[in-house]
This record gives sequence, C-alpha cells and structure tokens, in this order.
Amino acid sequence: MKGINMIQLAKELGLSVSTVSKALGDSHEISANTKKRVLELAKQYKYKPNPFASNLRKKKGKQIAVIIPDIVNNFFALAVDGIESVTMSKHYDTFIYLTHENLEREKSVLEHLENGLISGLIISVCTGKEGYGHFQQFYENTKLPMVFFDRVPDLLQFPKVITNNYESTHEATLKLIKSGCKRPVFFATTEPLYTSIERRRGFQDALQSQGIAFSDDMVVNCSDDMEENYNTLRKLFMSKKRPDGVFASIEKYVITAYQVCKELKLNIPKDIKLIGMTNMRTAALLNPSLSTLAQPAFDMGKEAATLLLKMIEKKSYAAANDIIVLENELTLRDSV
Amino acid sequence: MKGINMIQLAKELGLSVSTVSKALGDSHEISANTKKRVLELAKQYKYKPNPFASNLRKKKGKQIAVIIPDIVNNFFALAVDGIESVTMSKHYDTFIYLTHENLEREKSVLEHLENGLISGLIISVCTGKEGYGHFQQFYENTKLPMVFFDRVPDLLQFPKVITNNYESTHEATLKLIKSGCKRPVFFATTEPLYTSIERRRGFQDALQSQGIAFSDDMVVNCSDDMEENYNTLRKLFMSKKRPDGVFASIEKYVITAYQVCKELKLNIPKDIKLIGMTNMRTAALLNPSLSTLAQPAFDMGKEAATLLLKMIEKKSYAAANDIIVLENELTLRDSV
Repeated sequence: MKGINMIQLAKELGLSVSTVSKALGDSHEISANTKKRVLELAKQYKYKPNPFASNLRKKKGKQIAVIIPDIVNNFFALAVDGIESVTMSKHYDTFIYLTHENLEREKSVLEHLENGLISGLIISVCTGKEGYGHFQQFYENTKLPMVFFDRVPDLLQFPKVITNNYESTHEATLKLIKSGCKRPVFFATTEPLYTSIERRRGFQDALQSQGIAFSDDMVVNCSDDMEENYNTLRKLFMSKKRPDGVFASIEKYVITAYQVCKELKLNIPKDIKLIGMTNMRTAALLNPSLSTLAQPAFDMGKEAATLLLKMIEKKSYAAANDIIVLENELTLRDSV
Repeated sequence: MKGINMIQLAKELGLSVSTVSKALGDSHEISANTKKRVLELAKQYKYKPNPFASNLRKKKGKQIAVIIPDIVNNFFALAVDGIESVTMSKHYDTFIYLTHENLEREKSVLEHLENGLISGLIISVCTGKEGYGHFQQFYENTKLPMVFFDRVPDLLQFPKVITNNYESTHEATLKLIKSGCKRPVFFATTEPLYTSIERRRGFQDALQSQGIAFSDDMVVNCSDDMEENYNTLRKLFMSKKRPDGVFASIEKYVITAYQVCKELKLNIPKDIKLIGMTNMRTAALLNPSLSTLAQPAFDMGKEAATLLLKMIEKKSYAAANDIIVLENELTLRDSV
C-alpha cells in the first residue's frame, strides 16, 4: 500500500474521520481503547499525517472576501495591497473576486459566498443599473460584516470608506478653468455610480462658479470597450466643438485621451489641458507629464480592512453608519 | 417568528438539514411521510427558501484558484483577465490569491486550499529560495490538477505555459548592442526564478555573440523595496562604470530607471538606451516612448485556463508534461 490517509483509516476501523483525527491528536474526548486501535492501525499502515491538515483547522473562519470590478487598474490593485497589509498581519486569508463590471457576475459571487466559509467582505460595487438590493439581501441572509469602499451603495446602511470626490473634482476643475479652459469636458462612466455622480457635481459646480454654462454634451460617457472609447474621443477631438480641457474621472480614459492626441497631433496642454483621476506610477514620466487627482488607494484599502476586522473580532461593534472620508491629492504637472 | 431557516426546521423535526432540503426539493430519496411532515411545518412557519442556496449547490466544485505574486503589475493583471475570459464562459468561479513574493504566504495559501473546495489551480510561483517541494507535496495530498504559467517550477512534472524568454531576451539584447551599447546591464530579480535564469542566459549569450565580455557586475539585482531600487540605480547611474544600455527584466524596474534618469538629467536614449519587459499600456506615451519586450499576458492566462479546465473535465487527460510556449513581442521605440 503506497500510503494511507485518514479517511481510509477511518473506513477500515469503522470510525468517523473526526474520531480518528482526535485519536491521533490524543484528544481527551476519545477513549483510551479507541486511541489504541487507531494508533495500532496507523502504525501498521505507516500512516503519515498530512502536514497541512492541522494548520487548516486553526485557520477556520479567518477568511475575508474582496469584491472589486477590475485589477487592470492601479487604483484597485493598490487598494488590495492596502487591504492585505492589514489582513496578512492579522493572519486572515483574502479571496479576491473580480466582477468585470458585470452585475450578474457580482450577484453570482455573493451567491457563492453564502456558503459560510468567510467572516466578512470588502466591496467596491460594479457599474450596475439595478441598484444594490442583492447586497442588502446577502446581508439579511448571512449577517456577515461588510465594508464598502470607493464605489459605495450610497443609500444602504453599511460602513463605507470614500474620498472627498466632490470637493477634489471641484478644485481640479477650477485649475483647468484658471489655466485658460473655456470648454472643458468631463469623462464619465455610463452608469450612475455614486462616485461618478459626486465628481460630476463637483465639475458642474466649478463651471458655474466661474460663469461657464454647463450643457449635457460636456459629459462624455465612456464605455468598457477600449476601441469604442478610442473612436468616441477621436470623433470628439476632431469635431468643431473640440474641448480645450478634460477632467477624466477614470484611469483608462486618460491613457486613451493621450493616445488620441498623439495620433491627431494635438498638443497637450496647448490644444487640450488634461487632469486625470489615476494612481498610475508613470504619470510623471508621460509626454507631457500628467496632472493627476490621485485617490489614497492603499490607505482606503487599509482603512476598510481595519474597520472590517474590528467588526469581525468585536462582534458588538456597531459600525453600520460609519463613513470614513479620506482626501484625494491633486498634483499639477505639464498637462495643464 | 420573523422567519425560519432550513436548520431550524430540521431541528424542530428531528431530521438532518440534508433530509429537509431533499424533502423540500421533492427528492425520490425521501419517503412520502417525511415529505409531508416537512412541508406541513414549513407551511406553518411560512418558510421561505433561501434564493441563493439552490444555485450554490449547482455550482459545487466549479471553482479554481489562481495564485500569483502581485497584481500591481500589468502582466499578472492581464493574465488574470485572460484566465477569467475562459473560466467565466465555462461558469467557473475564480479565487485569486496574492503571495506578495512571500514564500510563507504561498505555503499558507496551499494549506488553505487543501480543504477540497476547488477543482484546480493556476499558479505563478513567488521568488522563493527553497525550491518548490510544497507544490509537489500539495499535489500528492490532493491530486488536484495544477497548471503553472510564466514563473514555473522548471524541474517539477506539471503542465506549464511559458514564453520564449531566452530567444526574445537574446534578440532584445542584440538590438541594444547594434544600436551602439558597449556596456549594457541586465536588471534582474535577486531570487533564482526560472524565467530570470532564461532571460539572463539570453542576455549573456547575446553579449558573447558580439564579442562583449560578460562580467558579474553586468547583472544588477533589484529588490522588492522600491526605495532600495531607486538608490541602487541612482548609485549605478552616477558611477564611473555607468552602463550605456539596460535590459530590465521586470516592469517596476523600468519605471524606476526612468525616474532616476529624469532626476539625474540623463538622456534616454543618448546616455542610456533602455528596453523593458512590460505590458504597461503607457509605454508608447512615456517621454521618451519606451521600447518593450511584452509577454502575451492575456493569452498566457487563457491557455493556462483552457488547459486546466480540460484536465478537470476530462479526468483522464494526461497533461503532466505539456509545455505551451508562446512568443514575446519586441517593439522598438524612442528609448533605443
């Protein structure tokens, strides 16, 4: 016999695996007689304990899930690093689930997590149109602690970690206007995310404060299809109503804007000034260097994880309405 | 009573949850009498089935784990997208685990996965010094299908998806030399990864083929600490033995090299020519635009997932020695 595992031992002895396991671990719950039977057969078969199994038991329940839209995005990648900086030090395992901006996938992940293996969730929602009833339903079914960050369901009573999207977009838009933009536009996601709505509001109010009339065509909706975005921007930048400034609220649209300007030989910042919400490390190295409004991604992840572990470990922790607001950082470079 | 779940129903009836579940699902395994008892009590308590539970059962076992070092790296982020392009279409759930280049963490993830929930693994190993015995041990304990990609344990008999690291690094190094470099250096990871060894061999052989003597100080080991890397490169680029060319085998070192050159006012490509292994979308937009050796990250993930699902679904599939080799793509831009 090449080797025997605990299940086979249990079968041969007519005992449960749990009894065999406890007997091998010399548990006080098991009679001396049973222990003797187990140990003798184990010896006979040269039973070698699975080195992983005992560790596994110790870890039961030290697991959290992180649900995010995307990782080909520096913001979420850094946020995950922030989350893990906390969870690893507290010996929690982290499962990462990507929704790819697909609501059905988001629901399916929640279904999967209902099996009770995890002790809490950290979530940044995808751009769904249907609202967030599935999160409320999940909570009612499981009562698991949940913390949302960045893209949060604004109307649900869960703890949240967000940033000052309204104020910081307002400030960035003012910089565009004060550096000479008269027709700035706002690159947005199509779907009505809370973060986008706040940013858009900051953009609009900044225009208004400077006497620039806002019109709907100043909001350019981008899709998840890169080619479609490329064509949208190409058309916009070639049109008579070409904007002279852009506030891009999503990282990938910034890169597309640079690519289109390069192709059309438009000069940044002379023809178009640009500020992008992004955490990309190459911002200062681009040609020209990119002005950024950066979210404190790592810290947001860290705060969310700290809050979640508090809720998990002190079961009485009443955090349902906690909202932690961190500040975005505006860095002006050559693109403005 | 606010509502009752299946566990409470089972308790009150003195039945197992599984029996109650089967009774509610009208299973032929359950006697008519038991079904009647269950349904009557369920009706009495206005039992509402958990909408997630039945879906959950259907999905049992349709889960794979992906173990990678890092996601703040375009290569791994794109590879995960490639993996999920396959797994999502086949209705597998994907768990992502990050090892953060930490061998203990890698072992701990494997321990966690021994609980049998998943049906297979896709892995890119971390930079451990101890070899890969823990993967072999995991396989012996679980017999779960495993596919490695990019960073593979070269001596273990598992299916692998890799790229032509030797040939493509050889080609890229030749381009550096032919564009005038006489003292190129190779930026490497400290740890002896198979991918690094192959790339380094390609670099050395290219030098030799052009009559340039190789010396150990032509390999610059970078660490995972960004500040340390910055200081290493700063010192190197200020030294008398300043290299006139760089082949950077890891994405994050490319960005650091640009930052240091910017600070020291060194001109790329005049003072230092640079080719980086990277999948970053901003490569063509950097100042100057970056010459890249890009791995087909998305396709590698796709191939790995396709292979793994084959192994899972056709249990007889003998792929233990399959090695799929894809080609890296060299794109020369202004940095050379």
